[in-house]
Order: sequence, then C-alpha cells, then structure tokens
Amino acid sequence: MAALRNDTLIRALLREPTPYTPVWLMRQAGRYLPEYNATRARAGSFLALCKSPQLATEVTLQPLERFSLDAAILFSDILTVPDAMGLGLHFADGEGPRFERTAADEASIARLAPPDPEVELRYVMDAVREIRRALDGRVPLIGFSGSPFTLACYMVEGRGSDDFRNVKRLVYSRPDLAHRLLEVNARAVADYLNAQIAAGAQAVMIFDTWGGTLAHHAYLEFSLAYIERVVGSLVRSRDGARVPSIVFTKGGGQWLEAIAACGCDAVGLDWTTSLGAARARVGDRVALQGNLDPLVLLGDPAAVRRETERVLADYGAGAGHVFNLGHGIVPQTPPESVAALVETVRAVSPRLHPSGSARSM
Amino acid sequence: MAALRNDTLIRALLREPTPYTPVWLMRQAGRYLPEYNATRARAGSFLALCKSPQLATEVTLQPLERFSLDAAILFSDILTVPDAMGLGLHFADGEGPRFERTAADEASIARLAPPDPEVELRYVMDAVREIRRALDGRVPLIGFSGSPFTLACYMVEGRGSDDFRNVKRLVYSRPDLAHRLLEVNARAVADYLNAQIAAGAQAVMIFDTWGGTLAHHAYLEFSLAYIERVVGSLVRSRDGARVPSIVFTKGGGQWLEAIAACGCDAVGLDWTTSLGAARARVGDRVALQGNLDPLVLLGDPAAVRRETERVLADYGAGAGHVFNLGHGIVPQTPPESVAALVETVRAVSPRLHPSGSARSM
Repeated sequence: MAALRNDTLIRALLREPTPYTPVWLMRQAGRYLPEYNATRARAGSFLALCKSPQLATEVTLQPLERFSLDAAILFSDILTVPDAMGLGLHFADGEGPRFERTAADEASIARLAPPDPEVELRYVMDAVREIRRALDGRVPLIGFSGSPFTLACYMVEGRGSDDFRNVKRLVYSRPDLAHRLLEVNARAVADYLNAQIAAGAQAVMIFDTWGGTLAHHAYLEFSLAYIERVVGSLVRSRDGARVPSIVFTKGGGQWLEAIAACGCDAVGLDWTTSLGAARARVGDRVALQGNLDPLVLLGDPAAVRRETERVLADYGAGAGHVFNLGHGIVPQTPPESVAALVETVRAVSPRLHPSGSARSM
Repeated sequence: MAALRNDTLIRALLREPTPYTPVWLMRQAGRYLPEYNATRARAGSFLALCKSPQLATEVTLQPLERFSLDAAILFSDILTVPDAMGLGLHFADGEGPRFERTAADEASIARLAPPDPEVELRYVMDAVREIRRALDGRVPLIGFSGSPFTLACYMVEGRGSDDFRNVKRLVYSRPDLAHRLLEVNARAVADYLNAQIAAGAQAVMIFDTWGGTLAHHAYLEFSLAYIERVVGSLVRSRDGARVPSIVFTKGGGQWLEAIAACGCDAVGLDWTTSLGAARARVGDRVALQGNLDPLVLLGDPAAVRRETERVLADYGAGAGHVFNLGHGIVPQTPPESVAALVETVRAVSPRLHPSGSARSM
C-alpha cells in the first residue's frame, strides 16, 4: 500500500513533534454533509451503507474533499460486532438501533462467541482495504470499535437507553454474568481491531460511550479492565509502522489517570475536562485528543473560532495534542462551522509547535 | 415552631460530630411509593399536587413513616420559579415538563423579573409552613431550588432536552443575553430560598441538574458563578440555628474544588466520584453528600447492602458525610430496597463515628 504522505496524526498520537496540531472530528462523515445524505439515500438505509464497502469508502472520503483533515475514520457502526454475534441489528425509521435478540440472561450470554472478523465482518475488512486504496497515502485511516462495556449496554438492553438500567441490574446483582459477557466482548473487540489493523487501519480507537454512566469503582471493574485487555492484545505495529491506540470514555475525565495507565497511546476527552489540567495530571504518559463541545458548531463562526482557539490554548505548546470534538458532530451542524474550526486549527496551531515546525520546514 | 429533636443532618452538614451518618434520599417522596401514587391520583396531576400545601405536606411525610430518614425535603418541582415568572408550566401526560412560552431571545429575556415568593409562590411557602408544623421537630426540613443555569435550560428550550442545544447556542453565541437571563434567575433563586428559610426550611439545596453538560470553563462562568451569587445572598441562620446550604451539580465531580469554594456548607456528588478521593481533595472545607447509584436499588437486597456499605467505607470514619443517592430514586425502585439501604446505614455507620457516638450516648 501507498506510503503515508501526512503522518501528523500518527506522530501526535505517539507524542512526537509535528509542525501543527492535527485535526479530525468524530462523525466527520455524517448527516451534516449533504453529499453524505445523498449517498445514504442511494444505499437505502444506514445499515446498508455500513455493509457496502464501496459506499462506506465513498462517505469516508467525503469530508476530506471539503476540509483539510489529518485523518480518515472508517465509516461503520459500533454495533456491527454484536450484530455479527447473531443479535440481529436493525434501525427503526427515525429511531436508534435495535437488536432482535438480547444477551441478558444465563442462556443467551452462554451462547455468545466472538465472530471471525474476516467471515462475519468481512464487509468491514473489505471497506478498510478499499478505503486504504482510495486514500492512497493521503492521510492515515483510523479503525475503531465500541468498548466491551458499551457493546454490552446495547446487547443487554436490546437498544439505547437513558439510564441502561438492565445493564446496571446485571452489574450489581449478577456480576458473574456481566463478567462472562464482557470477556466474550473483549475477545471479539480485540480480534476485530486486530483484523482492521491487518486490513490496513493505521490507528485504532475504542469508543466507550457509556462507561461514564457507571459508578467509579464499577467503571474500573466492568469497563476499563476490559478495555485494558483489548489494548493489551492489540498488534502494535504493522509494516514497521507503529499503530497507535486511542481510548475515549465519554464522561471519563475524573478517571483520566487510570485510563492513561491502560496501555493506550492516547486518551480522548470530552469537553467537561480542561486539556491543560488533564495534561498536568498525565504528564508525558499519553497524548490527549479532544475536546471542543460539538454544540459550539451550532453557534456563529466567531464563536467557533474563539472556542477552537480556547481548546488549543488550553492544551498549550508542545507535542501530544490531537484536535477533535468532545463527542460526535450533530446532524444540525452547518458545514461552514467545520470549515471555520479546521481553518482555525491550521492557522493558529503552528505557533504551538516551534520545534515540530522548524523540523519539517 | 417545635425544637429539632433529630439534628443529625444539620450537624453533619456543618461537619460536627454525629452518632451515625444521617441519611435522606433525593426524590424520597415519589412514584416508587404506592401511597404517593394514591395521593397524586387524588390531586389529579403532579402540578396540582405541588400547588396544594396540604397534599404536598402529606407526600413529604410519607417516606418518614416507612423509613428512619434523617430529613424531610419539601415536595415541589424545580420549575415552579420560571412558572411564577409567567412562562406557563404544564406537564403533558407521560411526558416531561413543558413551558407555554420560552425565554430565549432579547425581548422575552428582557421581560423577566424575579417573582415575589410570598405572592406568586405563596403555595410553596404555605407548604413549607405546613410541613414544619406536621413534622413537629421530628427531623429537619430541607428546602430547595433549581440552579440559575438549570432553570435557564428549561426556560430557553421550553422543555427537557438530550443536549440543550438552544441554551448552548445562547451561551456560545450570545453570552451577553445568557448572562442577563442568569442574573434574573440568580436573584429569583436567592429570594425563593430565603423565603423558604423564613417560612421554616432548616437547610437548603441547590440542584444544578444540567450544569454538568457544559464545557469546564463555561460551567464556571455560566453555572457556578451564579450559584455562588445565590449562596452569597442566603440567610445563614434563623432563630439562632445555622441553615446549611448544599450545592449539587450532577456530573460536577471534576470541578469539586471550585464548587467547594463557592461558599456552600456541603457538596452533593453523583456516583461517578469516589467520596474518599473527593474528601482528600476538599479536606475540611465542606461536608459531602451522596452518592449511591440510584440504580443499585433495582438490584437484589444483598447488592443494596453491599453497595451501601461500599459508599460508607469510601467516605470513611469521621464527621461530614450525609448519605444519599447520587441522583433521584427511579420510579421502578422496590420500597424494600430503600428499607435495606436505610437499615444498612443505621447499622453500619455508628462505628464510623466513635467520637460522635460517645458524645451522644
């Protein structure tokens, strides 16, 4: 495959000097882009779009045509893994994801087994290969998965929830069963991410969207412990290049030190945590990714520029920052806001990287 | 009014020794109790229940008949204040609160004025007086209000929201207008809490349910700064007794030091923060209230006892802990779980208070 022409993201994730702060955005390929909506309409459904390597490639590249982003992220869904375990994922119109079957009791959890990524999730691996070909070394491709606990949330509830009460009942009253489910998920996620790396993913990210709803001790036991197992199982380099890993627990700012010690290269943070304070807490152990409030993008361009500069200044000068949002772009975002964000990062961040800049010029 | 026979809560909030850890629960008078549902059915609606001092008194006292709780909390709603400002609160069946009018633009915000609590919110003050008479000194009565920012969330959106995007748009793009709205709210909340204290409330709590959705710097500027104004305006004692204040920002664990410096006597914490770690961070500056995950109460009694003991042990020995949940009781809670919780606190906590215990025996 083509050599990487822009390795800013990879270097920043490994805390190496870069000439500017690299930027990519969670859900950068998504409903705020008219061209995405057109492709999705052609696909017929969100799930059909995920399952078509050709169309997934098309939407993965769309934001790169508009904005100077430093990474592409695989277009897919975190629930492809439980779907491949046989739970039957579907999306009701205008509603969130639903599973036909749950994994919430002794019998249904006993039946679970990690899928073979190159068989049951072949369409994802084909998408990774096709995106890499299409990118042709332009920027790195990030692969991803939901965390074992976040997958368990949907597998137990059968859908999204505002409090995930059935998962919590399992965690508090049947911790043995919760652990059995999480062990299967951790093996499945590790296999899945390693298969993405084998197929061409140049960095990987674990999305722990719901770990932050757990009590502090339960987070360590039921979410972070399994993320740590996954990270410990990951292939660390491919074709001589390091493949950095990013762990993002939404609402996990309080547990930053613990997350930073899980073996990952970078920690994603949402907007409730100051990057400057976070940096003081973790020192040089990990890179930090984030963390503009995505709803800033609903404001006027002056607000977008001001808040983007605030995030850059909060991290401060030096290596180890990847600019991102604190969570996914919302569909109501005007594309002009994303343009203002990316332009501001490119215009302002070089002065935060004197050594990286000198080196690359 | 009758002298307080059980002042354990007040003493714990002031970090004075007590023989055991006092316990009360957010939403302890609520839908998980069949007797509450019966009274509510008689009232006709939730709002009618809030607006009847007699029925509000009845439901406020119901949980005290079942459980050995160390406080009563005024039965009311945080949205009575914007309702009294003329926004027209109503509850659609099976849905959350709605306002007929929003306060989201220049004109509507300019029209706002703090209500006179003894006029527009007379029914609340009457309820406070009637509850104090009915309690007859048994336990203290806690008064409360939503925080200025949390009220603003509903006033701008006109209803609940999963991301409060209109409030955030105001905060990021029209900070001047957001500040104007918050100034009115801060005066209204201070007047409202002081009127509750004058009517008989023996402690007051500010519920900042949504401040935790803000970015770290925006929290300080748009939520905590106004909580601080309110706390600074509060009457500190009545009839020679201190009236402690509690500030609870859901999701605010990361900002504990800043909250603890706002002038309040106690800080409420949700279940994502370790009480032991929190205590190490704030030292003897404030008491801490919390923080069992309310969903623990959906588990079996053994889990309730185990997790209750874990919270007590996490805080550790000594003064300054008020046992509570990390958020309100959910309607699906079996009352037996609450019994198991309260019994566990009463059985286990005396050994954490050797000096308080010796003193009172």
